Amino acid sequence: MVIPSLIQHKRDGGALSPDDWRRLIADYTADKVPDYQMSALLMAVFWRGLTAEELGALTDAMLDSGDRLRFDGFTMPRADKHSTGGVGDKVSLLLAPMVASCGVAVPMMSGRGLGHTGGTLDKLEAIPGFRTGLSLREARAQVERIGCAMLGQTPEIAPADRRLYALRDVTGTVESIPLIAASIMSKKLAEGLTGLVLDVKTGSGAFTPEPDRAVELARTMIGLGETRGCPAVSLVTAMDRPLGRACGHSLEVEEAIEGLSGRGPEDLMELTYALGAEMLVLVGATRDRTEARARLEEAVSTGRALETFGRVIEAQGGNPAVVEDPSILPQAGAVEVFRAPRTGVVSAVEPRRIGAAILELGGGRRTMDDTIDPAVGFVVTVKPGDRVREAEPIASIFARDAAGIAAGTAALHEAIVVAEAGRLSPLVTHRVTARGVELLAGPTGAG
Amino acid sequence: MVIPSLIQHKRDGGALSPDDWRRLIADYTADKVPDYQMSALLMAVFWRGLTAEELGALTDAMLDSGDRLRFDGFTMPRADKHSTGGVGDKVSLLLAPMVASCGVAVPMMSGRGLGHTGGTLDKLEAIPGFRTGLSLREARAQVERIGCAMLGQTPEIAPADRRLYALRDVTGTVESIPLIAASIMSKKLAEGLTGLVLDVKTGSGAFTPEPDRAVELARTMIGLGETRGCPAVSLVTAMDRPLGRACGHSLEVEEAIEGLSGRGPEDLMELTYALGAEMLVLVGATRDRTEARARLEEAVSTGRALETFGRVIEAQGGNPAVVEDPSILPQAGAVEVFRAPRTGVVSAVEPRRIGAAILELGGGRRTMDDTIDPAVGFVVTVKPGDRVREAEPIASIFARDAAGIAAGTAALHEAIVVAEAGRLSPLVTHRVTARGVELLAGPTGAG
Repeated sequence: MVIPSLIQHKRDGGALSPDDWRRLIADYTADKVPDYQMSALLMAVFWRGLTAEELGALTDAMLDSGDRLRFDGFTMPRADKHSTGGVGDKVSLLLAPMVASCGVAVPMMSGRGLGHTGGTLDKLEAIPGFRTGLSLREARAQVERIGCAMLGQTPEIAPADRRLYALRDVTGTVESIPLIAASIMSKKLAEGLTGLVLDVKTGSGAFTPEPDRAVELARTMIGLGETRGCPAVSLVTAMDRPLGRACGHSLEVEEAIEGLSGRGPEDLMELTYALGAEMLVLVGATRDRTEARARLEEAVSTGRALETFGRVIEAQGGNPAVVEDPSILPQAGAVEVFRAPRTGVVSAVEPRRIGAAILELGGGRRTMDDTIDPAVGFVVTVKPGDRVREAEPIASIFARDAAGIAAGTAALHEAIVVAEAGRLSPLVTHRVTARGVELLAGPTGAG
Repeated sequence: MVIPSLIQHKRDGGALSPDDWRRLIADYTADKVPDYQMSALLMAVFWRGLTAEELGALTDAMLDSGDRLRFDGFTMPRADKHSTGGVGDKVSLLLAPMVASCGVAVPMMSGRGLGHTGGTLDKLEAIPGFRTGLSLREARAQVERIGCAMLGQTPEIAPADRRLYALRDVTGTVESIPLIAASIMSKKLAEGLTGLVLDVKTGSGAFTPEPDRAVELARTMIGLGETRGCPAVSLVTAMDRPLGRACGHSLEVEEAIEGLSGRGPEDLMELTYALGAEMLVLVGATRDRTEARARLEEAVSTGRALETFGRVIEAQGGNPAVVEDPSILPQAGAVEVFRAPRTGVVSAVEPRRIGAAILELGGGRRTMDDTIDPAVGFVVTVKPGDRVREAEPIASIFARDAAGIAAGTAALHEAIVVAEAGRLSPLVTHRVTARGVELLAGPTGAG
C-alpha cells in the first residue's frame, strides 16, 4: 500500500477500495501511517467526499479498531439516542431512564463537552460521586440488572476514532459530513443496539447550522445504521436558542429531575417525548408513536422514570437522594437576576454566546485536561418571540463570585436580543427515516 | 496565530494574509508548526489555489528562510535557465558555458534527478572529480573569475522549500501550480539574477503534460519573477520524446561536449540556442534574438564555449581533459545495439519508460541515499515520424552486464513504438513573457 498514491487518488476524485480503508485505519492505529499523511488524506476527503462504499468501509474499520458492548443471550430490545450537540440539551438525562422504564434497555455511551456545547458525561458528574468510567463488563451487567447504564466511551471503543478526531480537531477537517457520520456511527454501532435515534441540530448553535446539511448528515448516519443491522431514525431539531431554560451542569441536572417529575419546560418535554417515542417504535416496543408517547408520559406521571434515574445514580456510585433534593448538587457562590434591558420582543437567545459564557465562568474546558466548575451557568426563562417589559427578570446568572456575575451579565446582554419583533422557529423540522425525509415544519427566519 | 483557523479559512476558499504566510513558514521552519498541520494546509492549497498576493508572500517567505547569492559591486549581467525536468535534457551543460562565453555571468544552481527525470548535478558528477557542493562564497568568486559556476542548492538556500518539498512528496501535494512555482522561484530568486529563462516541458514525459497547465505554470513563475526584480521569459517545449539522443549521465555529458563542439543533435542545439538567445536579450547583452543566436553560434564555432566548460570543470575539481577525450567518463561494462522490431514509422519514444529503465539499470535513485551508476543509459537515434526498416539499428544500450542489457532491451521494446504512422510534434510550442503568450506551433497529436 503506497500512501501517497492513495492520497493522490482521493485528491483527484477517485474512490479507495474497502481494503485500502481497512489497511489505512489499521496501520494508522498501529502508528505505521504518520499523522502528516493522514491529515492530507482527511483534507482530500473533506474536499472530495466519500462514496457510500468508502464511508461504510471507513466506519467498519474504525468500529473494528476496538471492542464493543456484547449482548449475547440478552433478549431485551436496546435503544439509544445521539445528539449532534447543543446548549441546554439535557435530553439524555431524561430519556435514558424514561425509555428504560418502558421495558427497552438503554446502554448509553456519551461524550464530554466540545467547544460551546455541553456533554452528558460532564452533567452526570455534577452529581456527587457519580462514576461514568464503567468497563464494558460493568455496563452490560448494569443494563441487565436495571435496564440502563450511562457511561463514557471506554478506551476499548473505536480507538481509531479517538485518534482521528484529535487530528481533525487541529487540522481544519472537522465539519465534513462523511467524517462526522463515520465518527459518530463507529461508536454507536459498538453499543450493540437494536435501534438508534439521532437528534441532528440545526441553527446558529449547531455544528450543521443549515437544514440541508443537517438532513444530509441524518441520511448519511441512517444509511450506515440500516446497512449494519441497526435501524435508525432522525429528528432534525432547532438549536438557534438553548433547549429548556437551564444551561450549566448542576442547573441542567436539576432541570432534568424536574422534567422526570413532570414539571420540565415545555420544549424540553416535547423533544424528549418525541425522541423517546421514536426509540420505542423503532425497537418494536409499541405499535406507534401515539401509544409510545402515552407509555412515556405514564412512566413520568407514576414516578417510575425518576425512580429509574435514582437507581442508575446509585448503581454508578452517585448519591440517589439528589432526585428528591437537588440542593445536594454543587451550588454557585453568587446568584444574580438579569433583567430585560428594554421593552420589546425577544428576537434572539444566542446559544453559542451562552455556551461561550459558561466556559468563561469556569464551566467548560479549554483543553482536555481542564476541570470544570459544575455550579456555574444560566437559567434563561424567555424564548425568541416572547414579549418583555423593561426591567422584568428574564434570566438568572450563577457564578463563583461578583466578577463572574459581571462577566455573565455582559454575556447575557450580548446573547439575549430584545427588539421590535421576534419569532420562535419550530422545534422539530424534519423526520428522516430510511424511507425518506418528512418536512414537519417549514423553515422560518429570525422574524 | 491559530493554525486550525488558518487551515479552515484556506479550505473554505479564503486567502491568508501575507503576514500569516510569513509567520507560518517561519514557524514551520523553526519546528513550531507540526507536519500534520502543514500537510493539511498544503492539500487545501492544492484544492483552492493561491491568490497572486498569497503566492508572492509564500515565495518570499521561503526565499527569506535562507541566504542568497550576493553580487554587490558586481556589474556584469547575470542570467540562468531553469527546466521543469525531462529525459535526455542536458541543455544546462551546454547553455551555461555558451552564455558565459558571450559576456553574461551564469550562477547556475541545479537539482538532482527526480522520479524518471535526470538532474544536472548528477550529470556533472559523472565527470571524474567534479565537485558541485560549492559554498555561496566560492560560487560568487568563481562567477567573478570565469563567468560561470554550476552548483547544487546549498543548505543555506531556501531551507523551508527543502522541508516543504519533502513533505509534499509523501502527501500527494506535488502537482500544484502555485506550490511548484513557489518552490522553483524561491530558489531561483536566491541566485541574484538579472534575468531568468524558464523551459517548461509538456507532453507525456513532463510534470505538466497538458499545454494549458504548462503555460499557466510559466505565467505564474514569470509573474513572481517580474514583481521581484527578476525579468523572466519562458519557452514551452516538447517532452513527449527524449531531447537529443543520449539518456544517462556519462552519455549526456559526452553529447553535451559534442554539442559545444558544434556536432550535437539538431533538436538539442535548436533548444539550447533558443533558450540562450532569450537569456542574452533578457539581460540586454544583445539587441534581439537574431543577434543573440549569432553570438552563441560564434561562441561554439570558435571553440570558446567548450573552453569555458573546460575552465568550469577545472575550477570545480574535475578533469578538464574530458572536453577533448570523453572516454575519461565512466564507461559501461556492456554495450548492445537495439534494432527496429519491424518496418514502419516510429510513433513513440516514451520518455517516462526510458527514464524508468535508466533507474532499473542503476542510473538513478530510488531513495535520496542511493548512489547512481553514471555509465548506464541509452542512445536513441530515432524520433517519432522517422521511417525505419526491420533490424535497422535504432538505439544502443549501455549497461553493467548482460542482465542489464536484457532489461534495457525489454525497456526499449516498450518505449520505442514502430507502427504505420507517426509524427514529430513541434519542439517549441509557446513563448511566454510578462506581456502574454505567443503560440509558436499548434498542438499535434501522436499522428
